[in-house]
Amino acid sequence: MDVPSRFHFTHHRLVEFADTDLAGIMHFANFFRFVESAEHAFFRSLGFRVHTADGHEHQGWPRLEVTCQYLKPARFEETLEIGLRVSELRNSSLTYGFWVFGPGEGRSLVAKGSCSIIHVALDTKAHQLRKAPIPAALRHALENMMAG
Amino acid sequence: MDVPSRFHFTHHRLVEFADTDLAGIMHFANFFRFVESAEHAFFRSLGFRVHTADGHEHQGWPRLEVTCQYLKPARFEETLEIGLRVSELRNSSLTYGFWVFGPGEGRSLVAKGSCSIIHVALDTKAHQLRKAPIPAALRHALENMMAG
Amino acid sequence: MDVPSRFHFTHHRLVEFADTDLAGIMHFANFFRFVESAEHAFFRSLGFRVHTADGHEHQGWPRLEVTCQYLKPARFEETLEIGLRVSELRNSSLTYGFWVFGPGEGRSLVAKGSCSIIHVALDTKAHQLRKAPIPAALRHALENMMAG
Amino acid sequence: MDVPSRFHFTHHRLVEFADTDLAGIMHFANFFRFVESAEHAFFRSLGFRVHTADGHEHQGWPRLEVTCQYLKPARFEETLEIGLRVSELRNSSLTYGFWVFGPGEGRSLVAKGSCSIIHVALDTKAHQLRKAPIPAALRHALENMMAG
Repeated sequence: MDVPSRFHFTHHRLVEFADTDLAGIMHFANFFRFVESAEHAFFRSLGFRVHTADGHEHQGWPRLEVTCQYLKPARFEETLEIGLRVSELRNSSLTYGFWVFGPGEGRSLVAKGSCSIIHVALDTKAHQLRKAPIPAALRHALENMMAG
Repeated sequence: MDVPSRFHFTHHRLVEFADTDLAGIMHFANFFRFVESAEHAFFRSLGFRVHTADGHEHQGWPRLEVTCQYLKPARFEETLEIGLRVSELRNSSLTYGFWVFGPGEGRSLVAKGSCSIIHVALDTKAHQLRKAPIPAALRHALENMMAG
Repeated sequence: MDVPSRFHFTHHRLVEFADTDLAGIMHFANFFRFVESAEHAFFRSLGFRVHTADGHEHQGWPRLEVTCQYLKPARFEETLEIGLRVSELRNSSLTYGFWVFGPGEGRSLVAKGSCSIIHVALDTKAHQLRKAPIPAALRHALENMMAG
Repeated sequence: MDVPSRFHFTHHRLVEFADTDLAGIMHFANFFRFVESAEHAFFRSLGFRVHTADGHEHQGWPRLEVTCQYLKPARFEETLEIGLRVSELRNSSLTYGFWVFGPGEGRSLVAKGSCSIIHVALDTKAHQLRKAPIPAALRHALENMMAG
């Protein structure tokens, strides 16, 4: 998982006070909140929303698997840069890598990892969850990016 | 808001690492998570659940107003004691006071405040929210406590 | 606590997925995280940081008291506007009101409340916490705003 | 990563309202908070604390790497069981697997993954962080468990 030469999407987010813990740095679980924010902004940039609801019929993207390596601490009031790159596109699911960089000139790598997510349709009345194909327009947009 | 001689419910909860911030103490917003946990345990002790869903028809208890005074810091791995006392019972809403105590013999007061909550029925399909009377059995249980 | 004609500071923040709860709206405790973000951005806009540490000597601004009234739900992917206005400036502490608005043309009031915060110096080695006067330059900046 | 026949430690924790998101289930990042709670309870059960501070000299256990596979949703008011098993013990770091089970008779596997953590000494005055050997007594306790 070397840093790719080009990301499919880049997002920035400030480390807030409530993101830190008593070790004085961002709590490790909050990296996943930051990456999720980047992912949702990526979807929005393509004209899609990660979660839609029409009454008891929801569509969403739960996680299948996540990994993260922590390389350096992230500190209060640092603006982190999160780069995403889709590595695999399947029928109903996809995997992307993420790379989180610290602020400033050094722009050192703070963390990196991957998320596999699956597109699902959820009937909250019947309590039924089933996988759903990735919408064609989204698939097309992602395929273009991955080919580019 | 003096400490009452008797609580309607008492709950204990450990301050976890993820509850702290870089000041080395529990983040102030997390007191509300602790108080909410105590409230939900209180409801369960009376045989009720704070949130139920049947398809697109939900019942819940959103907050109307909260207050909190912070008297002492709460620290990692301290078990806090949270006492609740209902002070006002209305048709669809109620108000309770909360008192949060630190661990050990001193059992000093760490925080105190109040929550006003309202019983609502939510139709997630029609996007309609309306206040709903407090269920009779719950009202009866609370009235008995307040009289006792 | 009517909406003031002018705020001392205005901040915007997106409601993220992780900010919501199973009622489908922003969890009530997270409003305090949003308000805290606005407060810290306000301090930064004045050239100050809310938390500094030099070894075991910290300076910070813990909360004395907070209140919040919840008027409307805040939903996923809404950008909220948070207006702050300092209402009282004391030797070591201050109180500000906050008003949180929903997105779009309606810009309806979602929540409002207040925070009282105190300036402290903390010696983490001696475990001593004492209140500290508000720095003169910050006091001056705030007084100018309040007079304006 | 099959479910082991025996865990080194087992912990229980209730899914709280604030742990859920608008998909109606526990937010994926909160699984790491639950696992961290289990880890810290494990350390306490062995007579150790994961974080100690003496003035500007801290000792702690930051994360090197985490992974998690999500198999089933976890829901509000479910009590989850978290089993831990140390798989590798190195000079300054260790890796454990975790398995999260749902409530009731089925006790189905909800999530599983791993955490690698490292023992560090942090000088918050000099801003120096260095890895520190695992304390001998802790190493001894863990070796006994792994042999048993």
